[in-house]
Amino acid sequence: MTGSLVDDLAALLGAERVAPFDARATRDALRGPAIEPRADAVAYPESPEQVAELLAWCYEREVPLTARGGGTGLTGGATPVAGGVVVALERLNRVRALDPGQWRVEVEAGVTTATVQRRAREVGLYFPPDPGAAEQSQIGGNIATNAGGPHALRYGTTGDFVTGLEVALPPGEMVSLGGAVRKDAAGFDAKRLLVGSEGALGIITAAHLRLVPAPEARLPLVAAFADVRSGCEAVQAILGSGVQASAIEYLDGRTLGLAGGALPVLDAGGAGFLVIAEADGTADEAERQLAEIAAAVEPLAQRVARPRGREVDELWRWRDGVSNVVATARGGKVSEDIAVPVERLADAIEATLRIGAEHGLDACSWGHAGDGNVHATFLVSGDPAPPEELERVEAAVGELLREAVALGGTVSGEHGLGWLKRDALAYQASQAELELQRRIKRAFDPKGLLNPGKWI
Amino acid sequence: MTGSLVDDLAALLGAERVAPFDARATRDALRGPAIEPRADAVAYPESPEQVAELLAWCYEREVPLTARGGGTGLTGGATPVAGGVVVALERLNRVRALDPGQWRVEVEAGVTTATVQRRAREVGLYFPPDPGAAEQSQIGGNIATNAGGPHALRYGTTGDFVTGLEVALPPGEMVSLGGAVRKDAAGFDAKRLLVGSEGALGIITAAHLRLVPAPEARLPLVAAFADVRSGCEAVQAILGSGVQASAIEYLDGRTLGLAGGALPVLDAGGAGFLVIAEADGTADEAERQLAEIAAAVEPLAQRVARPRGREVDELWRWRDGVSNVVATARGGKVSEDIAVPVERLADAIEATLRIGAEHGLDACSWGHAGDGNVHATFLVSGDPAPPEELERVEAAVGELLREAVALGGTVSGEHGLGWLKRDALAYQASQAELELQRRIKRAFDPKGLLNPGKWI
Repeated sequence: MTGSLVDDLAALLGAERVAPFDARATRDALRGPAIEPRADAVAYPESPEQVAELLAWCYEREVPLTARGGGTGLTGGATPVAGGVVVALERLNRVRALDPGQWRVEVEAGVTTATVQRRAREVGLYFPPDPGAAEQSQIGGNIATNAGGPHALRYGTTGDFVTGLEVALPPGEMVSLGGAVRKDAAGFDAKRLLVGSEGALGIITAAHLRLVPAPEARLPLVAAFADVRSGCEAVQAILGSGVQASAIEYLDGRTLGLAGGALPVLDAGGAGFLVIAEADGTADEAERQLAEIAAAVEPLAQRVARPRGREVDELWRWRDGVSNVVATARGGKVSEDIAVPVERLADAIEATLRIGAEHGLDACSWGHAGDGNVHATFLVSGDPAPPEELERVEAAVGELLREAVALGGTVSGEHGLGWLKRDALAYQASQAELELQRRIKRAFDPKGLLNPGKWI
Repeated sequence: MTGSLVDDLAALLGAERVAPFDARATRDALRGPAIEPRADAVAYPESPEQVAELLAWCYEREVPLTARGGGTGLTGGATPVAGGVVVALERLNRVRALDPGQWRVEVEAGVTTATVQRRAREVGLYFPPDPGAAEQSQIGGNIATNAGGPHALRYGTTGDFVTGLEVALPPGEMVSLGGAVRKDAAGFDAKRLLVGSEGALGIITAAHLRLVPAPEARLPLVAAFADVRSGCEAVQAILGSGVQASAIEYLDGRTLGLAGGALPVLDAGGAGFLVIAEADGTADEAERQLAEIAAAVEPLAQRVARPRGREVDELWRWRDGVSNVVATARGGKVSEDIAVPVERLADAIEATLRIGAEHGLDACSWGHAGDGNVHATFLVSGDPAPPEELERVEAAVGELLREAVALGGTVSGEHGLGWLKRDALAYQASQAELELQRRIKRAFDPKGLLNPGKWI
């Protein structure tokens, strides 16, 4: 089909909007497992109408479509595995409207997360979702995975900021769900179902996003602890203090061993656990909340630092880079994304280490402590890793995901299932729920052509 | 079927859990239009399993089911109109778990909204959704309509607090979607689709709800204005000040004429518009934000009051009662629930008056100004109103809903469509979107037995 599909799509969209498929350029940030990208062509539509035309053309001919944003996903959700067309959304990159007085922005799917954040900041507003890799990741992909990040604790995940979606749906139509209006209770909330649907129900082409007033100050506190238990006790103490922290992050001791040397504000040498808790608001308010957080944390901590000014940005830049530092430490990594009720956080962190040890794997974790979201990670010796190693990783991941469910949690807190966890929903969902998922899929995509070969 | 259905259900659930249908006791708070409640029996299940059994029994025999909470809905969504069984959820009234340290509560569907609010308050936490009629309305119904209220402006609507749902789904199975975990990106978010689905996809039996730390202080400001335009300008000024108000409410001049006499903190005599804007947070923070709100509002207002202490509760109690005061002013009312982008608020308020006048109807409105949510209301002379009057109301409502859509808004901001607006979705949704709604319905309820005769 290669060649002829490229020609056909060139005739449909114009030659400058179609390219042959290049596997090297179309692999997600997913590391570790040897995913085999497979597609026949890449289309670069420049308008929502072209996305709908492309979808209609493919739907008639039963050609699979895999929508793709910045490729920063960690589960291979945007990596094509079943042939057909990759729908690259990067040319749908207009900020259609920014309304500072109404706290909102309308953007096309290919606008980067960093652009949304920056444009909001320039007018005194704030777009809180910060899943990382913001310069590369695109808002359409963030919506399709309901991306989170550190500040989801206070502000919610990407979906909580979506008031409207423009979507191309099978068999090839554009629909607008919601819009600039902040509340809408008319009909089933198909918009919220598209959020987190990983390109399997429709192709998001644009979104109306809600913004919030920018906090005047962000004051983090960094605290080192002797071990997992005392660190998690501090997390509980922060929650129990009644302060609404804007973020409560953690790194375990092994992660600190790999990435802690570059930590800008505190000597974490020898620490077994690190917590970053942040207060935001007006300067006075953030100070007062920070004091309450400190009062909760200090009795349990070995050392505490309160970064200020430029150090705050440095701290968060360092935090954003942790995943990559860990990935390169031994050549590669397989990172999981379980979430558990927050009182089971220590259990999930310790289970990661135990399961790693049982399979002879170097394990560590970090994540969004206040949300119970654990990026449990197994280090491997290459990218992709040797097959023997990957087999052990696969066994360990299977156990870990089951453990997350046993703890009352989920196999994915914020990355989605994609390709990596294509079998994992069955760990937590009943037969009735799995069947419901299939019925939802068929209601939107009866031919099963949207992002095939993944979890659904 | 009456009689025999009661007997059959008594055999299934026990006689003490079944009653003959009584139309007088099963009509929603909906006023105005002459809805004809029609059902054959009322079931009072006492466990989720009984709900599932009942659903299975009915589904096999093609008996319609209408789930019913506190009956405070304003669109007739919980009023049965197609026969069959009313599923009254009031006996599912257990608070299953309250975890103050983890900021969450697990409640059954029949727990009243006031109970959820009170239990949260008792442990220093806060459940923000406040749709009104809290002592009577039940959390299951709040979720099924994604109920809002004044404080949705800052905190979001009911659905934003739902982390897990227990639901009975056709053909008669219990599923648990999500749970106590705060983030879950595994699979399609069926939980969010159930939110606002008005009993047409499944019957919600319990929910895990997220809570937030209670703000230490709530400081409202009440401001009277000469007219709609200056009042709406003040609303924009508050938003533009960069303060995140917890609520921005309004009443127009006619509503003030009916309900303003009892306003506890300000003489609103002669005013054409009233705004209530509230700041919350720690005492210092609320004071500071209140000062910024006041600075934005005062140049435009006729008079301003800042209630304190007990006056704050009195103010909100008065606000909560506005709808009933207006309803009894002339015997009845038909209240709408449009929402528009906030910069079109004045247009929507003025359109209500203009359309009312064109149809010889006494019109007024109030609502959630910051969310652009307008409870446009036409007064009628009885409950139900005389048919001739209702005909004019129906014509006026049709025009109003179309006007809302023309302004970029929605026919329902927070009440849902129910029976009253059963034809209104077509005003704002394309054919493709309407067809999508039907496909979603079929995916969940292929026999169309859940809440039939309503908007879907």
